[in-house]
Amino acid sequence: MNDSQPIETDSYKGVRDFYPDDLRRREYLEQVMRQTVEAFGYEAIDASVLEPAELYDAKSGEELAQEQSYRFTDRGGRDIMLRPEMTPTVARMISARAKSLSFPARWYSIANVFRYERPQHGRLREHWQLNADIFGADSLVADLEVIILAHELMKNLGAKEDDFIIKLSSRGLFTRLCEDVLEIDQETQADLARTIDKKSKIDKDSFNGAIHDLLETEAAERLLTYLSAGDTKIIREKFPNLALPLNDVEELLEQLKEREIGNVVFEPALIRGLDYYTGSVFEVFDTHPQNNRSLFGGGRYDNLMDMFATEPVPAVGFGAGDVTLANFLEAHELWPELGNSLDVSICLVDTDTHAAFGYQVAKKLRSSNVKTRVDISGKGVGTQIKQADEAGAEFVTIIGDDEIESEELTFKKLATGEETTVAVTDLSDVFIDNTNDPA
Amino acid sequence: MNDSQPIETDSYKGVRDFYPDDLRRREYLEQVMRQTVEAFGYEAIDASVLEPAELYDAKSGEELAQEQSYRFTDRGGRDIMLRPEMTPTVARMISARAKSLSFPARWYSIANVFRYERPQHGRLREHWQLNADIFGADSLVADLEVIILAHELMKNLGAKEDDFIIKLSSRGLFTRLCEDVLEIDQETQADLARTIDKKSKIDKDSFNGAIHDLLETEAAERLLTYLSAGDTKIIREKFPNLALPLNDVEELLEQLKEREIGNVVFEPALIRGLDYYTGSVFEVFDTHPQNNRSLFGGGRYDNLMDMFATEPVPAVGFGAGDVTLANFLEAHELWPELGNSLDVSICLVDTDTHAAFGYQVAKKLRSSNVKTRVDISGKGVGTQIKQADEAGAEFVTIIGDDEIESEELTFKKLATGEETTVAVTDLSDVFIDNTNDPA
Repeated sequence: MNDSQPIETDSYKGVRDFYPDDLRRREYLEQVMRQTVEAFGYEAIDASVLEPAELYDAKSGEELAQEQSYRFTDRGGRDIMLRPEMTPTVARMISARAKSLSFPARWYSIANVFRYERPQHGRLREHWQLNADIFGADSLVADLEVIILAHELMKNLGAKEDDFIIKLSSRGLFTRLCEDVLEIDQETQADLARTIDKKSKIDKDSFNGAIHDLLETEAAERLLTYLSAGDTKIIREKFPNLALPLNDVEELLEQLKEREIGNVVFEPALIRGLDYYTGSVFEVFDTHPQNNRSLFGGGRYDNLMDMFATEPVPAVGFGAGDVTLANFLEAHELWPELGNSLDVSICLVDTDTHAAFGYQVAKKLRSSNVKTRVDISGKGVGTQIKQADEAGAEFVTIIGDDEIESEELTFKKLATGEETTVAVTDLSDVFIDNTNDPA
Repeated sequence: MNDSQPIETDSYKGVRDFYPDDLRRREYLEQVMRQTVEAFGYEAIDASVLEPAELYDAKSGEELAQEQSYRFTDRGGRDIMLRPEMTPTVARMISARAKSLSFPARWYSIANVFRYERPQHGRLREHWQLNADIFGADSLVADLEVIILAHELMKNLGAKEDDFIIKLSSRGLFTRLCEDVLEIDQETQADLARTIDKKSKIDKDSFNGAIHDLLETEAAERLLTYLSAGDTKIIREKFPNLALPLNDVEELLEQLKEREIGNVVFEPALIRGLDYYTGSVFEVFDTHPQNNRSLFGGGRYDNLMDMFATEPVPAVGFGAGDVTLANFLEAHELWPELGNSLDVSICLVDTDTHAAFGYQVAKKLRSSNVKTRVDISGKGVGTQIKQADEAGAEFVTIIGDDEIESEELTFKKLATGEETTVAVTDLSDVFIDNTNDPA
């Protein structure tokens, strides 16, 4: 507890400090997310980052619940976890009120999630994630809305249609293939899903080898045929047993085209890492040559709520994280100018003598919604003006003996140098009409 | 990993799930916090909830760092903690950039913090907290601004001056009393601070006894005289050695009176639990008979950054939590009406047949910033209208075969029953002028 070695000023490994400039970028993303989903009538919810660990054991997959988790025991002996994803939390909340909520419910959250991984480009130990879901609707129109919403999010971030591509598939189709056609047991299915999920990260021969390691030769060949089908017609032809679940995928593709969403492709090898998907799955990919990767995705998960005692509720949604979206905006040069929104910086010739009057003026300005700071640095007026400019202030005004005596202030617009002089008594009249221009 | 016992739908003990209604209240508080501090020119920052545990060992006090902490070892063997308070994080960030930041810096954050405590009224294991601080200003005017800011926050939440009282004291004055007048060693000082911090929770005799247990009779009596002084004049008279630090307290009280802040009192027994305060300290108390408790507080902490290798930076600020402020608004009946901000709910006579047209209309409305949801419940139109009302929609419109044929829609304002019929092609013209009224 006494004087000891100095402490490092670094953040914990793999997480971020958000200085004002950094936070403005995150808040810009959050604002676009919020506006996009609220325009569709989604309501915001939130929860604690602390969750009972058992919430992830059943359905999230072993890698996430066991190997990549921030899992620990609290002082009361409870097995708890920092949420690695938001979906089980939202499912828990929906289940808790399944009897009183009116369905379908459209919910969203912008929440931080944690994974113990080696930090790398696009992956950190903590990131913020938009989750948007429709609960209690099992019709395909809900799947469609969620994909339209994801597309709208990209557009609202400034993306053009050729900046990204939406890959669409069906986990239900894959399950049907495994069970009805290839007759693969559940455990092998889970192994296959994990292997296929990593397809893009390994070369073709290694991938084919991995599939052959898991299956008999004929089943392996048939699966590889399925995975490389560039069109639903090929699957319809080669796997007539899959006709029914294929209808849904074709219907979705058709409907998206009708809504003028032109950048959707069928991709049977799209599986999604999480164990709980049951129906359509999709992923948004960046098409930029320097950032050619998955940005985010989602899908239908009708059975996740089986783990609770209440009646199951069908669900479809997606989660989009801030780190990959920031990389996307970076690659496509889509970040807008994001400055501080300070209106006035009041410079004081002498802090001790002039602060009282300065705060009086600031109070008047704030009552007209003019964001005003008083410079109490005690530095020279020239430095105060320079620092006001650096801080993004739109106007400066200098207060000294003369201003206090005359009760008149000169506001200088920093961008143009233009000056306007007004009486202190008229301040609120002047600023009330136009927050950003005292003239 | 297989089927097992159903999982409980409760949240982890002592934390909260925020359903839409709950979150609207928290977001209202956050919005008032944000507007208040941004009007004073404070810039937002943020950080991860995960911090190296050593950050709290040196200065936060043993109770907080050892007994009440969520402290654990990560998979890489690092000793980490869920932040129990935000100040050490902000101090770390300031220290990391002490050479490049321009001071004074005004920063704020609205961040969740964690303490392992028995959950009770006003205290949970996780709460959200506004922190607002000025770094790099050692003059009293900074202390003054921070208290004005706290007062402004209360006013912006709708509080009248007699709804709350600000108690002001000086940790510096207390330290001087202990060291120069009563000659008490540091360890006993820390014990005293903890005892005094709990004064309001025990009866007078027990408190006096506890002080006598810690000190010699004469010192105990003198300390009790100090703690019960209702006025700085009494201290000036009885402890002439404290004249100098007392000047600052008197100056602050005087200045606050001049700024027409009438609800500030001197309270020498105000200590604040955290070890790092060095100068003025203050606390905002609720005056409501049913909620007569401390709401939040802060003070000056000029030495906290000594724990880093960089140059120390003087600091003053406060932290205000969402749970106590919510209790305050509850007690004083200051919560505003907070509803969902949905503009239009589109009802479909038949989901399958009419959804495509419904989404087309929704798209047009959204392009005019009209928040629109499409009801895909498949329920009867009467139920859809009732649920639109419950969801807070301002208007409903019903889409069936007739509407698709005529390409005309009737919007019904739910509050008044008033109806307006418009052509689908004119939708954006109509809604563009007034988001909330198509008439």
